[in-house]
Parts: sequence; C-alpha cells; structure tokens
Amino acid sequence: MSACNGDDPRFTHVKNKIRVIPDFPKPGIMFQDITTLLLDPKAFKDTVDLFVERYKSKNISVVAGIEARGFIFGPPIALAIGAKFVPLRKPRKLPGEVISEEYVLEYGSDCLEMHVGAVELGERALIVDDLVATGGTLCAAMNLLERAGAEVVECACVIELPDLKGRDRLKGKPLYILMEAH
Amino acid sequence: MSACNGDDPRFTHVKNKIRVIPDFPKPGIMFQDITTLLLDPKAFKDTVDLFVERYKSKNISVVAGIEARGFIFGPPIALAIGAKFVPLRKPRKLPGEVISEEYVLEYGSDCLEMHVGAVELGERALIVDDLVATGGTLCAAMNLLERAGAEVVECACVIELPDLKGRDRLKGKPLYILMEAH
Repeated sequence: MSACNGDDPRFTHVKNKIRVIPDFPKPGIMFQDITTLLLDPKAFKDTVDLFVERYKSKNISVVAGIEARGFIFGPPIALAIGAKFVPLRKPRKLPGEVISEEYVLEYGSDCLEMHVGAVELGERALIVDDLVATGGTLCAAMNLLERAGAEVVECACVIELPDLKGRDRLKGKPLYILMEAH
Repeated sequence: MSACNGDDPRFTHVKNKIRVIPDFPKPGIMFQDITTLLLDPKAFKDTVDLFVERYKSKNISVVAGIEARGFIFGPPIALAIGAKFVPLRKPRKLPGEVISEEYVLEYGSDCLEMHVGAVELGERALIVDDLVATGGTLCAAMNLLERAGAEVVECACVIELPDLKGRDRLKGKPLYILMEAH
C-alpha cells in the first residue's frame, strides 16, 4: 500500500466507527470511544492492517502497549509483524522487578511500569496506544524503553487530539495516527 | 488439528514460557506471569493459534475479554475468527451506558461492566481471560453476556488453577485451558 490517507477508504471507515461521548469522564471532555470500532470486525481488522502495513518491514522487534486500551491494539500488531509484546502497566500490576516513570496529569500524577529484562539493548521498539492527548503517557513510555536500552522507532495511535499538542512532548520521535479529533 | 494436548508440542512450549513469581501480590500466592510468554513471538502466536483452531468453526460472533490481561489474548482471537471484540471493564472505565455485575473477592468485592448495545440477542460469545482461579470474574462476565441476551459458548483461559475449583462456578458452561498450574 502506498496510498496516502485521502485515497484509502479504510481511514474513513475507521474514523466513522469511533463514537464521541460528551462529558466523560468529566464535564467538557469529548471522549473518543474506540469500543464501537471493535464491534465491527472489518473496521477493527482495517485498523490493525493499516498499522501492520506500515511497520512490517521496519525491523521492529518490540511492540509496547500502554494499559489498558493499548493492550487491545498492540498484540495483534506484534503478532502480525513477529515482534514481542511488552505491556506497560499501572503501578503494582506487574509481578516481577520493574522500572517506573512518573508523569504529570491535569490533577496530580500517575506512573507507568515495565518489567526489567523485557527488552534488550538496541532493540527497535514501537509504542502503541489508542489515543494521544497531552502526550504525557507516551512520553513516560518512551522514557521506560529508552532507559532499558531500546530505540523507540515511532509511536502509533488510532486517534490524535491535535489541539492538546501531545506531539510536542515526544522528544522529536515520530507519531503516526489514523485520525484526528477536535 | 485433532491432536490432543499430549501430542501437540505447542502446549508444552506455551507452558514453559509462563513465569511463576512467589508471594505476589501477597505472601503465599504463586503468581502465574504471562508476560514472559508475550516476549516470545512464536510462543505467543502458538497460544493464539491454539484458541483460533478451536473456535474458528464454532460460529462465534462475540469475543469478550476481561480487563486487563484478557485484552491481550482476546483481540487477536476475535480478529482471526472474524468476531467482534467486547471489553469487559472495571467500574467507571467504559464511557457509554453500561450494565454491571458485582462479584465477591477473598476480601471485599469487585465489579465488571459491559456497554449496553455491545451484543445482540442470540449472539454466540466466547469469554477470554489469562487465568481462572476461583471463577468469580468469569462468572460475572457470563452473567453480563447472558443478561444482554448472548449465548456463552465457552470460557477460554491460558491457565487454570484447578485447586481453586473455579470450574464449578461456571454454571455448567465449558472451560477450555491450555495448561494447569498448582
């Protein structure tokens, strides 16, 4: 596939399956709900295929998925390109020895953890999540992988909220998305 | 594939990739860690393939995965058999209208939620999680799907802890597993 976004009907197909729910989880937020995409087997397959076509020849050996919705999109991509899947989880969920990265939220902070030994020095990694908003979670994920010695090739998300400028926090690493939402 | 467990080397391959971590999340628990399985692309693919071979001709239109590790195994199975994927989540995570099922834990209780409208009357459903222990979570998942009018065909888990007798709580529905742990 060399079609750009505008030519490939799958991008529109995917976008049309995202449901927008106003005022969740709090007033003023227009929540981008990917669960309606998952209810359409063809649209879900299109989503995964678009990522797989982009990454299958990029020599990626690690797909890291961010809890919890990154666990839905990351594993099918990892399986299709023959990479390992590394879950990046909330605190106290991973049972082995971990490294941690705190990141700032609108109110307070949160933390992401990765198992020690999950990636090896020099491995090429793709980070997957459903949505990029402020970029704080993706930035923490990048820090975890880089501290473990991996090279982050790209971040891949289904949806970007460009108004929140999350792209600017990704330390110059490319971000690939299937659709923008405003 | 008609090989029984003993004949198919993939079962042993999968089992050998599960890491056991003592005293997590509390003293006395031998935690079955599937994250080491995910680090081996061949073993992860074998795991998914074993489920897909079992379910591809069973006319299943819904794969329901239980947060969070059921999100790792459920979507690749759903994609391969052409079913929708329905996430069953902890409270206040799903943005739309939900139905809820409480279930009892060793100390206190927890709750699982499913979006209203995720399944249609008469759909044939498979429930996926990484592990069955007491069966409480799987039972709550079955109740959600049945309340929405779906028929639960089977529950599928990578690991069973047979000493905890979770099978007895599944209301007579079959449970398929790849390995037992003691």
